Amino acid sequence: MKVGIKANVPQAQGGGSLTFLDAIEMVRRFCDQRDWRQFHKPKDLAIGVVTEGAELLDLFRFKNDEEVQALLRNKVTRGMVADEMADVQFFLLRMSEVTGIDLGGALQTKIRKNRSKYPVRRAKGSNIKYNQS
Amino acid sequence: MKVGIKANVPQAQGGGSLTFLDAIEMVRRFCDQRDWRQFHKPKDLAIGVVTEGAELLDLFRFKNDEEVQALLRNKVTRGMVADEMADVQFFLLRMSEVTGIDLGGALQTKIRKNRSKYPVRRAKGSNIKYNQS
Amino acid sequence: MKVGIKANVPQAQGGGSLTFLDAIEMVRRFCDQRDWRQFHKPKDLAIGVVTEGAELLDLFRFKNDEEVQALLRNKVTRGMVADEMADVQFFLLRMSEVTGIDLGGALQTKIRKNRSKYPVRRAKGSNIKYNQS
Amino acid sequence: MKVGIKANVPQAQGGGSLTFLDAIEMVRRFCDQRDWRQFHKPKDLAIGVVTEGAELLDLFRFKNDEEVQALLRNKVTRGMVADEMADVQFFLLRMSEVTGIDLGGALQTKIRKNRSKYPVRRAKGSNIKYNQS
Repeated sequence: MKVGIKANVPQAQGGGSLTFLDAIEMVRRFCDQRDWRQFHKPKDLAIGVVTEGAELLDLFRFKNDEEVQALLRNKVTRGMVADEMADVQFFLLRMSEVTGIDLGGALQTKIRKNRSKYPVRRAKGSNIKYNQS
Repeated sequence: MKVGIKANVPQAQGGGSLTFLDAIEMVRRFCDQRDWRQFHKPKDLAIGVVTEGAELLDLFRFKNDEEVQALLRNKVTRGMVADEMADVQFFLLRMSEVTGIDLGGALQTKIRKNRSKYPVRRAKGSNIKYNQS
Repeated sequence: MKVGIKANVPQAQGGGSLTFLDAIEMVRRFCDQRDWRQFHKPKDLAIGVVTEGAELLDLFRFKNDEEVQALLRNKVTRGMVADEMADVQFFLLRMSEVTGIDLGGALQTKIRKNRSKYPVRRAKGSNIKYNQS
Repeated sequence: MKVGIKANVPQAQGGGSLTFLDAIEMVRRFCDQRDWRQFHKPKDLAIGVVTEGAELLDLFRFKNDEEVQALLRNKVTRGMVADEMADVQFFLLRMSEVTGIDLGGALQTKIRKNRSKYPVRRAKGSNIKYNQS
């Protein structure tokens, strides 16, 4: 099975029915039990998003497509990828709660904007960013 | 109102009822209409997570707490923060779909792990990471 | 002593007389002895710059000004900062060698450009980026 | 000519004779003329390293080896890469000055450490990190 190229039916999306609000509440409870609000300023949470994102990317450093696919098939390294994705998600949700910015709504808005920015006719099959055309 | 310090009831979480599976499907449809699967390899999606996360962080660069709060109160700059958060979320969801990794489930698993890694008794009010203690 | 605010005479710049060309050559020899050129494609080296930069930033996560200064006074943690700065520098120099881009020259060119972009009269004491004014 | 794979004699290293101390002084003068020391706290400079590094990486996003090489041959896009590399270097040098950490010396120390961490015998031709072996 080719991972990462062919369309996937996300078979094991057991967490797929989780809503953004549930997820935010789960993160909030975990953090508040530890009294971490004092550290969780928006700027530091954005730092968290980037540093955890970099740990995710670090797993793929110096790896070619085949090596990335092997890494995603291996149970242990696949779990490491899942862990780092979760860490980014954690900080993003916490940032949503702390700032009051509606993350799910922001996503809906952004996709709407991107429909105009990348009209199907022009963007189809192109990796050119709008500002490079 | 102090933003980013006091607990927030996320008033305007209009997207809060969105599930991870709905969000993944929304992103998938947008990308597939543009035939972008060929570019969306896991490594490049991880690059997307980091570069968009850095654009989010860039909004706070050189800003102190008061300036960050002012930025989050201003409608225009608040919208910029929301936009960048959405961009990170976009790539995270796309990565979930492309790799078949259950993002919501990974979050639940990670919070469970973190409960042991950061027991309330030791972690309360501390910003020391487990590996620095 | 206040670290990070007052002007410093960089007392211990023992490596200060190192030239960019010497540094590039030092990195090249280290990498070529290990036969790493095959992995050191420009894109992966840019990933290296970002992931090592994120490890540097991670040392300051959730820390306020006083905590950052304490961290920079402590010999062990100061050494960790130096190590991460060196890692970023390593990848930047390797990228210069691999692409043939003159890093020292690029710095000189960029500062020249920035003199026009941020004229003293307008930029003095301001943290507003040119594109936000 | 293959860029980024074959060894390069860095032909145009006009800035190669620049020393780290000269470069630090050049950056210091530029910043002090603009009275930017107040913003240049170590944590924000580390943010600068990461966000500029991400802008560098962003130039390669979704690009395969051939596209990266074409981008490095094209005069305009090659200049963009050089500019972003310079931006990372700028913040790294400023951080060296502001913290008093000897950047050139840190590089020498780190390469010495890496000689033990990655002994030629084990590291030759391998992209396995020491902690993954």
